[in-house]
Amino acid sequence: MNPPKDSPATVHIAERLAEIERFHVVALVTRAFELEAQGKQIVNMVIGEPDFSTPQPIVDAAVDALRHRQIRYTPSLGGDELRGELQNWYRTRYGVDLPKSRIAVTSGSSGALLLTMGALLSPGDEVLMADPSYPANRHFVRAMEGRAVTVPVNAASAYQLTAELVEKNWTPRTVAVMVATPSNPTGTMIPFDELKKIHAVVKRKGGVLIVDEIYHGLTYGFDAHSTLEFADDVFVINSFSKYFCMTGWRLGWMVIPETYVDHIEKLAQNLYISNSDVAQQAAMAAFKPETLSVLEENRHKFLQQRDYLLPALRELGFDIPVEPQGAFYIYANCSAFTQDSYHFCYDLVEKAGVAIAPGIDFGEHRAAEHVRFSYPQSVAVLQEGVRRLRDYLKG
Amino acid sequence: MNPPKDSPATVHIAERLAEIERFHVVALVTRAFELEAQGKQIVNMVIGEPDFSTPQPIVDAAVDALRHRQIRYTPSLGGDELRGELQNWYRTRYGVDLPKSRIAVTSGSSGALLLTMGALLSPGDEVLMADPSYPANRHFVRAMEGRAVTVPVNAASAYQLTAELVEKNWTPRTVAVMVATPSNPTGTMIPFDELKKIHAVVKRKGGVLIVDEIYHGLTYGFDAHSTLEFADDVFVINSFSKYFCMTGWRLGWMVIPETYVDHIEKLAQNLYISNSDVAQQAAMAAFKPETLSVLEENRHKFLQQRDYLLPALRELGFDIPVEPQGAFYIYANCSAFTQDSYHFCYDLVEKAGVAIAPGIDFGEHRAAEHVRFSYPQSVAVLQEGVRRLRDYLKG
Repeated sequence: MNPPKDSPATVHIAERLAEIERFHVVALVTRAFELEAQGKQIVNMVIGEPDFSTPQPIVDAAVDALRHRQIRYTPSLGGDELRGELQNWYRTRYGVDLPKSRIAVTSGSSGALLLTMGALLSPGDEVLMADPSYPANRHFVRAMEGRAVTVPVNAASAYQLTAELVEKNWTPRTVAVMVATPSNPTGTMIPFDELKKIHAVVKRKGGVLIVDEIYHGLTYGFDAHSTLEFADDVFVINSFSKYFCMTGWRLGWMVIPETYVDHIEKLAQNLYISNSDVAQQAAMAAFKPETLSVLEENRHKFLQQRDYLLPALRELGFDIPVEPQGAFYIYANCSAFTQDSYHFCYDLVEKAGVAIAPGIDFGEHRAAEHVRFSYPQSVAVLQEGVRRLRDYLKG
Repeated sequence: MNPPKDSPATVHIAERLAEIERFHVVALVTRAFELEAQGKQIVNMVIGEPDFSTPQPIVDAAVDALRHRQIRYTPSLGGDELRGELQNWYRTRYGVDLPKSRIAVTSGSSGALLLTMGALLSPGDEVLMADPSYPANRHFVRAMEGRAVTVPVNAASAYQLTAELVEKNWTPRTVAVMVATPSNPTGTMIPFDELKKIHAVVKRKGGVLIVDEIYHGLTYGFDAHSTLEFADDVFVINSFSKYFCMTGWRLGWMVIPETYVDHIEKLAQNLYISNSDVAQQAAMAAFKPETLSVLEENRHKFLQQRDYLLPALRELGFDIPVEPQGAFYIYANCSAFTQDSYHFCYDLVEKAGVAIAPGIDFGEHRAAEHVRFSYPQSVAVLQEGVRRLRDYLKG
């Protein structure tokens, strides 16, 4: 019964790990923190997180709940009241009537993505998505036994999938198409008419459309339309993290096609039990007029930040052929300076004290020629970043 | 390009869903809430959640963080400070020295279980576990492409796996063994010597041992030993939900064998980004003397509740051959009253206003003969439950 004393440790590493990659953004943020601990000031344009605090009415609602209520498990798809608030949000913001039962509150949009892929995908099922796109998307697909088929996209389609690309890349194993509008890392959108065409192709082919709308609210000069305005057979992913400035609370939501509601609930019961009660109580204040007024001020500041950074980067020599319309990202071609954006980014943080994200985080297509700037920082900080970049690029 | 107007909705239901079951506990809790909304009083002995509020120092720490800090993404495996608190907890509570790097803070123990299975399991890999056990365990295995092999256990082994059972049920596809001590649903423990023997067998066979220690702190008359006192090649799962009364905050932790740390971190970056900053700030107060003193009072009350309910249930005619030593569950044979515990439970909530969990939630082995009582309720509530049960069983 006794093991040999010096038996080597047994290691079983899951096969999926060979296909799931690290987030370089996280490594660069960590390096930035280390350098700051050594007394250096780093200009952080790498993390996809608003610089603004969570609006006070949301914080106050959390404090109020903590003071006056027990914090308990909630229903797996979220408390009834918050689902009601979201129902109302779709009615007032988009003119869409949804039954509360189709709205699920999740542990960030990460939770929504895992549940969506978990409900849809059987082994080998393919999901089409753009390259570049948010890196975790393809890993959620892999984690749920599917195969992410990334479709190279270029400036010509604003770095987005089109109905034509979907049609062309469809295979007998394709079951779903995932798009994000506005997109991370490009900040670009799918024109609403094109989104309708994509939906039509997906429907005709017998697939399911998944739409990431987590940067809704952060579009500049106009409000984004929701896919739900014309379709009820789509999965729509959203989040309290970005527009509502609630990253660290870990709360998101999704709208589910009727047929999948029970399946998603069963998965959520098992994989999450429930999501944060504290965050849900806080989010009850997310749609109050006083909160929305703060958020709209933030949005105006994001616009000013974009409008400073975009021309400044172009002047430095970054090629940015498509003007981003939303989110807080600028996806820039850096081939005037380097053919290796990965080492460029790691060198930049060390030598210039500027942290930006390498293209490789978002896919493979021309990744070495691209970087992503994240601009939810004050214009003064962005100016300092540009100054440092200028010095570095001259040197 | 236009789809036929009346094309039927396309549905892709993932194969895994056929193998993942609903939580009847949740359905019964929901039914109890519905009946209470109709004005009926239900005695809730079904949910695995302490009746006690989160201790005040923990709540105060959260409020303080909300008032004075920005709530942000944290590192994917948790903030350095909380990992330091946990390191200290293992030192003072168990006499075990761990590097902080091996301690990961997770989104509940649910997050820890998904990450563990995600790092270990390749398609078809088998994980041995007891039947009965916590239902989500086998579903985490399935979600991560493994096969849960449930081993029927009986009163003779206190409803726990033994080294002998592990040896006997090992196959060439077995890569891991999962045990829980104390166990949900039985409240029983694995004797520490037997746990060492199980570890030795698993190690000799070339597998990995996963130990759920989430009911540590809730053992009566003694403190549980951690597996980490004799092994550093095990995954240990823990949680702030039960002993620390923080269910609705969704915070857990795990201790990871050195070899797996980077893999777990990579998975966590992709599947969770981070866990709740609010909850982590709150949990910084979990190990303060004033918190622990509240928790020890709670523990004494749980003991009183068990010591009331256990003999009362036996007197009613439930057969409970093994005295539970921990958690807040009593696993009872109900075959004196029914051969169908599932319908018994659903009938009980309607006719007697008492909610308890059917055996089927925890496995298949003699499930129809068993029910689980959850006793984190005041003795007065438990007395009312017993009174109602007595009337129902007489009727």
